[in-house]
Amino acid sequence: MDFELNEDQRAFADTAQQFAMDNLLPNASRWDADCHFPKEILKQAGELGFLSLYTREEQGGLGLSRLDSSIIFEQLAMGCTSTTAFMTIHNMVTWMVASFANDETREQFVPKLLTGEWLGSYCLTEPEAGSDAASLKTTAVKQGDNYILNGSKAFISGAGDTEALVVMARTGDSGAKGISAFVLDATGEGISYGRKEPKMGWNSQPTRAITFDNVVVPARQILGQEGEGFTFAMKGLDGGRINIATCSVGTAQHALNLAIQYLRERKQFGKPLASFQALQFNVADLVTELVAARQMVRLAAFKLDHGHEDATTYCAMAKRFATDVGFKVCDGVLQLFGGYGYIKEYSLERHFRDVRVHQILEGTNEIMRLIIARRVLRDDDSIL
Amino acid sequence: MDFELNEDQRAFADTAQQFAMDNLLPNASRWDADCHFPKEILKQAGELGFLSLYTREEQGGLGLSRLDSSIIFEQLAMGCTSTTAFMTIHNMVTWMVASFANDETREQFVPKLLTGEWLGSYCLTEPEAGSDAASLKTTAVKQGDNYILNGSKAFISGAGDTEALVVMARTGDSGAKGISAFVLDATGEGISYGRKEPKMGWNSQPTRAITFDNVVVPARQILGQEGEGFTFAMKGLDGGRINIATCSVGTAQHALNLAIQYLRERKQFGKPLASFQALQFNVADLVTELVAARQMVRLAAFKLDHGHEDATTYCAMAKRFATDVGFKVCDGVLQLFGGYGYIKEYSLERHFRDVRVHQILEGTNEIMRLIIARRVLRDDDSIL
Amino acid sequence: MDFELNEDQRAFADTAQQFAMDNLLPNASRWDADCHFPKEILKQAGELGFLSLYTREEQGGLGLSRLDSSIIFEQLAMGCTSTTAFMTIHNMVTWMVASFANDETREQFVPKLLTGEWLGSYCLTEPEAGSDAASLKTTAVKQGDNYILNGSKAFISGAGDTEALVVMARTGDSGAKGISAFVLDATGEGISYGRKEPKMGWNSQPTRAITFDNVVVPARQILGQEGEGFTFAMKGLDGGRINIATCSVGTAQHALNLAIQYLRERKQFGKPLASFQALQFNVADLVTELVAARQMVRLAAFKLDHGHEDATTYCAMAKRFATDVGFKVCDGVLQLFGGYGYIKEYSLERHFRDVRVHQILEGTNEIMRLIIARRVLRDDDSIL
Amino acid sequence: MDFELNEDQRAFADTAQQFAMDNLLPNASRWDADCHFPKEILKQAGELGFLSLYTREEQGGLGLSRLDSSIIFEQLAMGCTSTTAFMTIHNMVTWMVASFANDETREQFVPKLLTGEWLGSYCLTEPEAGSDAASLKTTAVKQGDNYILNGSKAFISGAGDTEALVVMARTGDSGAKGISAFVLDATGEGISYGRKEPKMGWNSQPTRAITFDNVVVPARQILGQEGEGFTFAMKGLDGGRINIATCSVGTAQHALNLAIQYLRERKQFGKPLASFQALQFNVADLVTELVAARQMVRLAAFKLDHGHEDATTYCAMAKRFATDVGFKVCDGVLQLFGGYGYIKEYSLERHFRDVRVHQILEGTNEIMRLIIARRVLRDDDSIL
Repeated sequence: MDFELNEDQRAFADTAQQFAMDNLLPNASRWDADCHFPKEILKQAGELGFLSLYTREEQGGLGLSRLDSSIIFEQLAMGCTSTTAFMTIHNMVTWMVASFANDETREQFVPKLLTGEWLGSYCLTEPEAGSDAASLKTTAVKQGDNYILNGSKAFISGAGDTEALVVMARTGDSGAKGISAFVLDATGEGISYGRKEPKMGWNSQPTRAITFDNVVVPARQILGQEGEGFTFAMKGLDGGRINIATCSVGTAQHALNLAIQYLRERKQFGKPLASFQALQFNVADLVTELVAARQMVRLAAFKLDHGHEDATTYCAMAKRFATDVGFKVCDGVLQLFGGYGYIKEYSLERHFRDVRVHQILEGTNEIMRLIIARRVLRDDDSIL
Repeated sequence: MDFELNEDQRAFADTAQQFAMDNLLPNASRWDADCHFPKEILKQAGELGFLSLYTREEQGGLGLSRLDSSIIFEQLAMGCTSTTAFMTIHNMVTWMVASFANDETREQFVPKLLTGEWLGSYCLTEPEAGSDAASLKTTAVKQGDNYILNGSKAFISGAGDTEALVVMARTGDSGAKGISAFVLDATGEGISYGRKEPKMGWNSQPTRAITFDNVVVPARQILGQEGEGFTFAMKGLDGGRINIATCSVGTAQHALNLAIQYLRERKQFGKPLASFQALQFNVADLVTELVAARQMVRLAAFKLDHGHEDATTYCAMAKRFATDVGFKVCDGVLQLFGGYGYIKEYSLERHFRDVRVHQILEGTNEIMRLIIARRVLRDDDSIL
Repeated sequence: MDFELNEDQRAFADTAQQFAMDNLLPNASRWDADCHFPKEILKQAGELGFLSLYTREEQGGLGLSRLDSSIIFEQLAMGCTSTTAFMTIHNMVTWMVASFANDETREQFVPKLLTGEWLGSYCLTEPEAGSDAASLKTTAVKQGDNYILNGSKAFISGAGDTEALVVMARTGDSGAKGISAFVLDATGEGISYGRKEPKMGWNSQPTRAITFDNVVVPARQILGQEGEGFTFAMKGLDGGRINIATCSVGTAQHALNLAIQYLRERKQFGKPLASFQALQFNVADLVTELVAARQMVRLAAFKLDHGHEDATTYCAMAKRFATDVGFKVCDGVLQLFGGYGYIKEYSLERHFRDVRVHQILEGTNEIMRLIIARRVLRDDDSIL
Repeated sequence: MDFELNEDQRAFADTAQQFAMDNLLPNASRWDADCHFPKEILKQAGELGFLSLYTREEQGGLGLSRLDSSIIFEQLAMGCTSTTAFMTIHNMVTWMVASFANDETREQFVPKLLTGEWLGSYCLTEPEAGSDAASLKTTAVKQGDNYILNGSKAFISGAGDTEALVVMARTGDSGAKGISAFVLDATGEGISYGRKEPKMGWNSQPTRAITFDNVVVPARQILGQEGEGFTFAMKGLDGGRINIATCSVGTAQHALNLAIQYLRERKQFGKPLASFQALQFNVADLVTELVAARQMVRLAAFKLDHGHEDATTYCAMAKRFATDVGFKVCDGVLQLFGGYGYIKEYSLERHFRDVRVHQILEGTNEIMRLIIARRVLRDDDSIL
């Protein structure tokens, strides 16, 4: 066992930290207030490879592991949770197209996704389905050389401001095996977008519903084979859960760093807050749980990288644990700041709002519990 | 012992509920989004007596007990947390002036405060003092028939949009006994207001800093005697803590009612959410804790009404417990709603943001713990 | 509303406290160590009426309300959790026989149960049934003037050392409506007892399994009518839950009193423990939750006394909340005592062991959550 | 980073598991009930090297790392928590004497400690000192070639049944730098033992107080130099905390394995418990936290092995987190078993009692929080 970052990982982290401090942190509050989607900054991120971290090198990506990627995303999230979370979604889109599209389609989409010239949205969730991904209703019916898409998607990150869509749609029977994945030009005829959904946080990325009304998609734009969509989606989710968990860890670490500084400097009753034992205990617990959360995320990423048969379970555990801890830390830090935690002049309330959605996204934490329990309680002798 | 509301209390609750459903609930989202201070609605509340619930009848108030008032505020908070919280502050201001001003000053302020023609702000907190109220630095120096006020206040609810200020200022030595209370015309010369503080929630009431620069206050506008200010402030705080705790209970009950409806109606995996055992357990715990929170608030109000020697301790317990539970319920309900909990189309995220500040205001919950512990651990034989 | 004890209640509490301090507290450790069932002390309790608190006066009981009884049991539990818990069971048995037996049977059993000359066990739980009371398998088949009982019961308090048994057995179809209740001489032919079950706590009352092998019970010893057993059991459970919750509250209060004394006296790093802020916070939270737990218990008792339609729900809430809090307090106090908390010279570890079973008995706290959720989520408009 | 055990570690774990299943698990209940100290089994453990895991090879130990040792102790703890915990203490004693005694003294003690022919007790805690180790009062005064020891120790594991004592005593001024360490023959004149302390758990190891009354110790039996004792103690504590945390993890894993089996097999309301969603969620959370706890322990062991400057902080975090989680898991599993969890026929209640002391020993978890906070809040720029 080895718990240290290697030299490369440390170098990646430094680059990411630099980028986050220079380009994300100074703007994050404004992006939040203005609900601004920083496409220009995302392009800069693309130049550094941050939009294709784990896309294979032969397809133009950095070819990093999920663990390496997590180390990078954690640093980025310290600059802006919401923008980093979008980057992780875009990374998934890029990876999925690069990995499963045929050559022609890959050529069409991947180079532009790598650089951030095009941004991508991932379209799985539907209004009625929520956590029950396999029940999706959007259809893709083969007609000659095309598929005709009909249906609607909800809560799609980036939708309306991105150029590419990866869409899960039903090409076959009900259930998971009837689902296929497609990549689409986001501006295609028949695609319409709902209003920009006002939401509590994650404001630097727009969220919209999408409706597909007889959208014609060339058959070559299917990813993999018919019926493989759900498998891709599940693979994507494992990584997506690590990523979202990572965003919680990075944000919480940033909040905690602010808290530590604040406790040292701010005085009450004539003494620095850092000298109050109850606050010390509080910080000690937050730090401890955050260290544990980071370990869980890295453990899961390692399992996923090594194709461990229980990788999905570990990803679910990491997602549940780290997003809960991430919120707990941001909530605890907000409280330490008192009134200053509640006003927008400080960033604490933004962290608190932003990480809250991580407990809901990529499968709610309730769904994570089901995944974990199903594995643990299944009737064989292997115990985690 | 008797745990039932009496007939009067039930009638008050009904009236308040009616008002909340008619005038608060339909507007609360908009007030939040627009940061609108609904002065017109507050005047209507005044007409019903909601701005002077526990001001004595001979001074024009309803003369209700704190317990009665809590029953009313709880219903109002089900309509709009933030607006109700402001009403509770205004009630405190009205009560304080009505109770402790001399006749002339009372005549000048109280009739207008009762009706809501004038609204009042309560000015205790200072930028450097936070939870350490006794350390305040704003000074009031006697010059002939006037006091000259200098200093600044922070996080003042309503400030800049209210007509009357109750201000705690130092007329004597350092410490609690050097503090006096004054009521001021909010537009007086030398009073300037900071920018409207953007904050996470409580958006239907403006929050501003106030600076006093040689503000001349007629000596008759002192409340009570010199040096009594801290005592008044502490009395105010006991009630204020019950009130803020009440706002948490009302909001949480409203959120929970929405959750129950949602669980009955919304389906996942082909079954209503209400049939999922883990969600059932979750709701059962939230309901139980909320019932306990309400009991704690009413117990404290009862103790305050009856001049119990440990009323302050009970108020601190109620505030700590009910504001923590209130947030926990709103957080839990948000989670039950999943993605819908996070978007502004539903009100859950507003409740979540609004109640969060209750754990900070009127003495943080950390201060509550100190108050409770000091009483419990003091060296005598009486145990709570 | 009125949150004060009345004069009678205060007098009952004083008497109970006296009894607990004189007769229970000095012996509780020894009874625990020796697994001694203090029948002699129980008789003394009977003399004071503590074995028939809520049995009606015309049947020889004190005729107190459940709320009054809870106030008394709380004081008794401060002396010995386990013995008091047995008293609450005996009270239930006495009440059930006094209320539902016919005259002849009542005459036979009740006078001896009132005084503690006979002690009673309550036989509901079966080895396979656990929380699923309605599925019980013990049968009672009518043969002429008798019922013939066959089957077995598990975890029966007092069994093997008591003189009377109230037994739930199936006289009809499967399900709740086929169950009837009987009162039996505990030494009857065909009744055999398992070994005295070694257990973690509750050691002053023996626990044994019981087997009924063609036990002949005169038909007049049925309680009420055939098929009413489950209804009686459920009525009994409502009260039983209040009682067990009360035992948690009393024990926790006793532990907390010890903690407070200890914190004042014990020094570390040159200062009394009471001066350490983190411990102060800790105690503040334990006190607060215990006050809330007591309120919940009294609220539920009040609802039961007044035949409130949701009394069962309130009893379930009180049981869940107060037994969880009771354990949390005892666990927290054990930790405050450090090494001294873990050794038997001090009583903390006993309290910790004794209250732990309250989260399991009288329906596990998981069953409580089901009961609460079922009520809250049922499809009507009344909300708690 | 690498999260997999290597081949050696897997082999160690297998051997330890075999030993635990063959020699510990079948006897653990009996040892607990009889308060039996299994010296014969400890000797067998010595033959396998389990009594000198991290003692260097040149001194006869296995020369393993702390991480390796933790992997082994975890397996042993699955067989018997209390006996394994004693082994970890003995390992510390062996290591301390082997590492810091002079040659002659080492020759005298170490060979017998390696094999378990002699067992060792570690004598740091004093009756008045508790968590404040530096304040210890036992004195060692140099007289010619000897030190004369006077004072007393409390809560000493193994005391009265062991042959060697490592004793911390004051040779100089007050404070940490006046403390020295000695190794003693446990039967020396002037050493007397208190009664075997009845305690809630950890019953397979005796606990006694020790009094030193003018005990003559040859000067060569000092470990290291005068004044180095506290440093050794602190070093010992870092490892001791990993060990005790490991014992919690192993015990909890064993309890969880039992729970999983039980949930699959036990039925309620006609379905296996494993099919109840609320129990599934419960298990999912316990598993997740236990995985996190194990990671924290291994991370800390790794840091200690590599001489990381913050190793002490990581050890404190691991101890706090893993012992809290260990108890939480055992408590949760006890609850899953219901009544069966509470009786001694099953082992759940023993696990629950045994792990509870881990939150208290080796520095209470409150002290852990202080250690963590002190590091985190200290005034430099390095953040964990």
